[in-house]
Amino acid sequence: MNTSIREQLLQNINNKTKPLGALGMLETVALQMGIIQNSLSPQITHPHIVVFAADHGIAATGLVNPYPQAVTAQMVLNFVNGGAAINVFCRQHHIALQVVDAGVNVEFDKTLPIIHAKIKMGTADYSTGNAMTEEEVQAAIDTGKKIVQEIFDKGCNTIGFGEMGIGNTSAAALIMSAIINEPIENCVGRGTGSNDEQLKIKKEVLKNVFIKHQLGSLSTQPLALLRAVGGAEIAMMTGAYVQAAACGMGIVVDGFIATAALLTALQLDASILLYCIFAHTSNEQGHTTMLNYLKAQPLLHLGLRLGEGTGAALAIPLLQSAVNFLNEMASFENAGVSEK
Amino acid sequence: MNTSIREQLLQNINNKTKPLGALGMLETVALQMGIIQNSLSPQITHPHIVVFAADHGIAATGLVNPYPQAVTAQMVLNFVNGGAAINVFCRQHHIALQVVDAGVNVEFDKTLPIIHAKIKMGTADYSTGNAMTEEEVQAAIDTGKKIVQEIFDKGCNTIGFGEMGIGNTSAAALIMSAIINEPIENCVGRGTGSNDEQLKIKKEVLKNVFIKHQLGSLSTQPLALLRAVGGAEIAMMTGAYVQAAACGMGIVVDGFIATAALLTALQLDASILLYCIFAHTSNEQGHTTMLNYLKAQPLLHLGLRLGEGTGAALAIPLLQSAVNFLNEMASFENAGVSEK
Repeated sequence: MNTSIREQLLQNINNKTKPLGALGMLETVALQMGIIQNSLSPQITHPHIVVFAADHGIAATGLVNPYPQAVTAQMVLNFVNGGAAINVFCRQHHIALQVVDAGVNVEFDKTLPIIHAKIKMGTADYSTGNAMTEEEVQAAIDTGKKIVQEIFDKGCNTIGFGEMGIGNTSAAALIMSAIINEPIENCVGRGTGSNDEQLKIKKEVLKNVFIKHQLGSLSTQPLALLRAVGGAEIAMMTGAYVQAAACGMGIVVDGFIATAALLTALQLDASILLYCIFAHTSNEQGHTTMLNYLKAQPLLHLGLRLGEGTGAALAIPLLQSAVNFLNEMASFENAGVSEK
Repeated sequence: MNTSIREQLLQNINNKTKPLGALGMLETVALQMGIIQNSLSPQITHPHIVVFAADHGIAATGLVNPYPQAVTAQMVLNFVNGGAAINVFCRQHHIALQVVDAGVNVEFDKTLPIIHAKIKMGTADYSTGNAMTEEEVQAAIDTGKKIVQEIFDKGCNTIGFGEMGIGNTSAAALIMSAIINEPIENCVGRGTGSNDEQLKIKKEVLKNVFIKHQLGSLSTQPLALLRAVGGAEIAMMTGAYVQAAACGMGIVVDGFIATAALLTALQLDASILLYCIFAHTSNEQGHTTMLNYLKAQPLLHLGLRLGEGTGAALAIPLLQSAVNFLNEMASFENAGVSEK
């Protein structure tokens, strides 16, 4: 971290024609973006959202999710056809959208405009065994890195990660519980909309999974955690975070699952956090706990709980506002405005 | 309120390819916009921010404000030159910006691209007499109505109001205190940045003003309140709210002063509230209290305390996202996505 650029940025922010601190969190973001880019006039170039999609073996049991597993693939096609919420918000804000088949339990037509990077046809059911092999976890992480590197090479400097995977709030809750040492029942939420009875069953199932895999003993072993209960999309997103930070990109962190993937990525490289701007507080139980653990101050609190990167897409215009005010606002001196 | 359109809108929102309620507050906004426009596919056309600027006699005493009164006029010129925060955010989001001289204590060049609607050269010092005459209050309200009608006639259906006026958090605090019956010391905040000593003096001065004008007895007399302690910009904004609702426009409510003006407007026509979308929670002491009084659920919580309509401008893209998802997202049926 460059102390001098921080001081210069703060001076520029404070000299803008506004009371000191009056732009609140936008000032924090402007400072962070300037530091990330080591620039007094940071820019957002070719922002991207990458949605990683994958299936979870546990979902086939129907014990943790109200929607059928087939919805993962159906939603991938919805992304391709431009009909999902993330499509709408990316179009609105001129954000490029890339959809990745990280491990959906369907063979997609290879001509579809998605990134075909299937690790496997959905993970194995972790209530009976490991979700993935060690090799599959590593392949997913490596692929996530490669995808981000390619996007960076095309000129993108700001990126957000979304996900689609029926059952993946369960994997995220297990990972969260292990890493931040919070009882699993406090990490499990309604996901796509479990009712009280379904939520109760989900909690019981995941408590047994936690015990079976002794996840508490894996709290500092991210690869072992991903192997035991991870999803291919979560593992791939983990690699994506690592590479985005390595490339010096601004990373817009979405909701519950994206933040759980960040927890695993931070165990591989704690410095990733410097590049993270937290988009929003999800309505999914447990997200606030993770955000507090990370001392994160999310930009939005809209009660979203959709995933897909939708919170990240909605926050990117605020990042743009932050760099815009830094680049475009007059200073007291330039505008001939009196100071206190 | 049309029950049938509400039900149809809810049905359309619930049939979008997302879990029920997963877009949180955006769903509430989409519903409200549909109801306001009596349409299943509401649109945001030619959004505007109108910034009303005026001076306050009390500010010349220097007792309630750290910045000199001259800053009001200087900031108007900053708006004209495009260098203020509101210019930046309006440019970013293609929002038309109109600046109104409601009563700045400077004669502006008449060729400047502002709406010249000066009621007087700043209000009188309300620590010694009334801020305005009854006629001036009425003229300000009528002018505010006329300005909004003209903007509506040009095709705008969504509008936000901002303000600029050194000293105007004091007028707003007095109005708030009178209308919602909250002790003045709980309504007074730091404004553009009073320190502890300045804040103490500000509270004492305004407590005396409250007593002198017996503002508690004017709690249901908005015109008398405005005459006693109002600003020309607050009175004009009051009229602007009335007309915007009369035209059936969506009204994006900004921060502390804009919400105080709304309180006065609601006394003239309580139905205005149906048209209001609350942009943000300001960091100015007292705003949260007003929002709670109005049972408002603001979209943003960014710690802004700048005024100018900046919070409204930053919230308009979220209104756009709300109508966009309603208009553009696929339904479960159209996308071939399975329901629960």
